[in-house]
Amino acid sequence: MKRGVILFAHGSRDPQWRKPMEAVAARVAAREPDVAARCAYLELTEPDLPTVAADFAGQGLAQVAIVPMFLGAGRHVREDLPALVEGLRTAHPTVDWVLQPPVGEDGRLLDLLATLALDA
Amino acid sequence: MKRGVILFAHGSRDPQWRKPMEAVAARVAAREPDVAARCAYLELTEPDLPTVAADFAGQGLAQVAIVPMFLGAGRHVREDLPALVEGLRTAHPTVDWVLQPPVGEDGRLLDLLATLALDA
Repeated sequence: MKRGVILFAHGSRDPQWRKPMEAVAARVAAREPDVAARCAYLELTEPDLPTVAADFAGQGLAQVAIVPMFLGAGRHVREDLPALVEGLRTAHPTVDWVLQPPVGEDGRLLDLLATLALDA
Repeated sequence: MKRGVILFAHGSRDPQWRKPMEAVAARVAAREPDVAARCAYLELTEPDLPTVAADFAGQGLAQVAIVPMFLGAGRHVREDLPALVEGLRTAHPTVDWVLQPPVGEDGRLLDLLATLALDA
């Protein structure tokens, strides 16, 4: 297991809220058993990003991608997350931390959301 | 134009945040010119849901689908939104208001998010 993926989402007081994020992590793990896949949350839901990152660093993963599970990118994605990732680079310099664009910037996702909107 | 779609999202102080939602509305309109497609926001971003709903009711639309553009469904989707939709049913009883499940419950979306996570 050489590569990791962290699905980074906002978090919520509602315990149901995290279910889709965990479902995506399960799909990633099912498709690519050699990729370590975990969710991490900015607030209100555990675990947080530094905790998952430290686990992955401790496992000796060479590269970890951080995928912002946000449709709209505001302060959380454009300010809070880059600052968190800088902290990971300082704390765990042996890992290549790759911050991906937020999922809401991908044209395939926008196309599928339009399909879902017309499914009514 | 008989049918409407309202893409309902959270909203943000950041003016960039709404761009993906507006991009989905543009895709819906391009694919189905007979469907009226608009975004509406719970807070911090305009227009709000009652405003868009009143516009659509005033246009005489027979049916309007409300699509929650949320990956995780917490209080906003499970409590705030149903209460808002009940208000629309009372205010505009000639329109058939259809509240769709949140996009994060759709298996196609979860599959695509897994693909994006592995694209790194």
